[in-house]
Amino acid sequence: MDSEWDKLTLAFSRTSMFPFFDIAHYLVSVMALKRQPGAAAEARKNPLSSWFTAMLHCFGGGILSCVLLSEPLLRFLANSTNVLLASSIWYIIFFCPYDLVSQGYSFLPVELLAAGMKEVTRTWKIVGGVTHADSYYKNGWIVMIAVGWARGAGGSVITSFEQLVKGSWKPEADQWLKMSYPAKVTLLGSVIFTFQHTKHLAISRHNLMFVYTMFLVATKITMMITETPTVSFAPFEDTLSRMLFGWQQQFSSCEKKSETKSSFNGTGSSTSKPIADASDKIKKKHIKKTE
Amino acid sequence: MDSEWDKLTLAFSRTSMFPFFDIAHYLVSVMALKRQPGAAAEARKNPLSSWFTAMLHCFGGGILSCVLLSEPLLRFLANSTNVLLASSIWYIIFFCPYDLVSQGYSFLPVELLAAGMKEVTRTWKIVGGVTHADSYYKNGWIVMIAVGWARGAGGSVITSFEQLVKGSWKPEADQWLKMSYPAKVTLLGSVIFTFQHTKHLAISRHNLMFVYTMFLVATKITMMITETPTVSFAPFEDTLSRMLFGWQQQFSSCEKKSETKSSFNGTGSSTSKPIADASDKIKKKHIKKTE
Amino acid sequence: MDSEWDKLTLAFSRTSMFPFFDIAHYLVSVMALKRQPGAAAEARKNPLSSWFTAMLHCFGGGILSCVLLSEPLLRFLANSTNVLLASSIWYIIFFCPYDLVSQGYSFLPVELLAAGMKEVTRTWKIVGGVTHADSYYKNGWIVMIAVGWARGAGGSVITSFEQLVKGSWKPEADQWLKMSYPAKVTLLGSVIFTFQHTKHLAISRHNLMFVYTMFLVATKITMMITETPTVSFAPFEDTLSRMLFGWQQQFSSCEKKSETKSSFNGTGSSTSKPIADASDKIKKKHIKKTE
Repeated sequence: MDSEWDKLTLAFSRTSMFPFFDIAHYLVSVMALKRQPGAAAEARKNPLSSWFTAMLHCFGGGILSCVLLSEPLLRFLANSTNVLLASSIWYIIFFCPYDLVSQGYSFLPVELLAAGMKEVTRTWKIVGGVTHADSYYKNGWIVMIAVGWARGAGGSVITSFEQLVKGSWKPEADQWLKMSYPAKVTLLGSVIFTFQHTKHLAISRHNLMFVYTMFLVATKITMMITETPTVSFAPFEDTLSRMLFGWQQQFSSCEKKSETKSSFNGTGSSTSKPIADASDKIKKKHIKKTE
Repeated sequence: MDSEWDKLTLAFSRTSMFPFFDIAHYLVSVMALKRQPGAAAEARKNPLSSWFTAMLHCFGGGILSCVLLSEPLLRFLANSTNVLLASSIWYIIFFCPYDLVSQGYSFLPVELLAAGMKEVTRTWKIVGGVTHADSYYKNGWIVMIAVGWARGAGGSVITSFEQLVKGSWKPEADQWLKMSYPAKVTLLGSVIFTFQHTKHLAISRHNLMFVYTMFLVATKITMMITETPTVSFAPFEDTLSRMLFGWQQQFSSCEKKSETKSSFNGTGSSTSKPIADASDKIKKKHIKKTE
Repeated sequence: MDSEWDKLTLAFSRTSMFPFFDIAHYLVSVMALKRQPGAAAEARKNPLSSWFTAMLHCFGGGILSCVLLSEPLLRFLANSTNVLLASSIWYIIFFCPYDLVSQGYSFLPVELLAAGMKEVTRTWKIVGGVTHADSYYKNGWIVMIAVGWARGAGGSVITSFEQLVKGSWKPEADQWLKMSYPAKVTLLGSVIFTFQHTKHLAISRHNLMFVYTMFLVATKITMMITETPTVSFAPFEDTLSRMLFGWQQQFSSCEKKSETKSSFNGTGSSTSKPIADASDKIKKKHIKKTE
């Protein structure tokens, strides 16, 4: 029975992303672009700019990975087949009569299928990034995590930057710093696959790929059906942040107990934030005074 | 007689850009910089920054091409002769007593000659970019177009970015997206030379270079004499955009005929824009409401 | 006696930066980050972002040098030991109970020692940058100066850019253009070491390294004790700027003597600025009118 499982996961890990999964990825990316306000109008006014933005959405992770490793940024354009595929999808989504494609995509099962398939490509990208980074620096495990992460979740970073340059997006410290759910889950995957690659994790790659992909697809589809914006990592994050960054509070709280008495009624994160915010405000006041 | 023509164009295509055409290019670029408001004052306050900006204006296309192919950005500095030439021109333009050079340049025939010679370097840059990109990716024709375009017209992109970083230029979506006339004509040239390079265009390179350069110089000089800001590609663009992006309107117009009845009185572009603008406005209103 | 001196400087120039000088560099960089308003609060809210900023502060020069030469930006992450060292220092500075490290660092002798040791790493970085650039372009002396400068003083550029992207820093033309004291002194060092490297300066490298480092450390410690923000290069800069950019004023002043009569009472820089400002204002007015 174990060999049956192995056969299944091995076959799964050898699935080619081209063309169906790639198409799903381009479809989801371009639809996300089209649902931005003003995107459809802009596409009619300036098709070249819209096409360029669509390419950034589709190939953003690869471009960011190229930036980080200083490989030619235009390498994605060299793969003419994929560029033409993405361009065709951009074209039919934006310029199809009666908006047929958009309307078909709004049908929930179609959207679920496309989103699920897009998540599959994420695993492949992470694995590709980790393996690629390994060929640069032997045992440079931090580089491997970073490149895997960039490939898997870099599209959002690139598009934020693109909007910054266009002027349609004003950066705010808070927004930029908060990691989105895909960024978090991709970071987790990148760490796991890096440990697998450096033989610190005693699991074969195809098994890990299968398990991680199933996890991605399952959470994504659950999120879409229940319409929750994110699956919360909060308990896990709280524990980790309490272990790493919260234990000092016990010392400080001994000192100024009266001040932070109510701190330990709630969970770690809900208490640490008000304190941080308060000290932030005090500092800002301080600056205003000194100015 | 055909061989005479061939000899002429071949000799023309072998003309060395260094030093006279390069000087004309630096002269036009730095004069464009000096005519920006505040540039002369800035040069006195902070010569190093002014020099740096001047270098960006002179070598912008090459730098952008290096960014896209991830070659060392400082490669342009390695060519000490050209850097010193450009620096000298920057120096005499900004710091010449009585502003002699600027006044000499204001004399129309001089300006025409310099502008014409600068356009010649554009052809050489496009051809250089296309050939250079070909050595990276065999048959990566999209890369070839992009690099040729970047080399030929990249200066304006780099300088916009430089102003963005300096804070003296607020990006607006519209301004950034609209392509300038040089950008358009360089894109056209880049496409043509790429097709020539991939043997899809049955014309020898030196002939094409001669014809394209003559076209560039003629339009540029016409534009300067008649003081029109651009030679309009509007009819050509309209036809193209109608073919590619306008045909869907026929379908939609059948449906909501009463609404867009007046759409087909004018040309394609003049009609598609109001519609796009209108839908844009509606969307923006919608956003304001939901906020 | 001369050989004793040689022995001393040779031994000095062979000192390894790792680990003590590197630690001092990371300590000073991260403390500079922590003293920024809101940094401590941000570290609790979003440790990953704070860690990333700290790494930019610590490895900024190296990253900028990689950008300029298009080497993999993540190369600094491949040196796991140094990254872990910097991370540990970031961790104990931001999350040590009772803020012990910050308080210990506030003790002046400790701060002086750390700052002095950080200046020593600057020399090593400049020399490293110059040598590294030389391996790219033989006799590309402008590239050598630029890379040496980027390695030695690039941290501030990278962090400005990082703040620009985060949105917490609005660029103003003036602020960006003014070079800080470290930037100036690093540029000077980069020029000197480049001339030494190209054999235009008849002094052995280890002697030069010793002298330059002593100069850096002495000025830094003097500045910290006397609490002057910068050691002024003003007289030297004035002379240079008068030689290069001021002599034209004599010509112009002959013409409009009545206007700029008071120009030659003060030093070059103090006189040239008001003129420049004035002409700047006039131009700005002119623009407003034409708008």
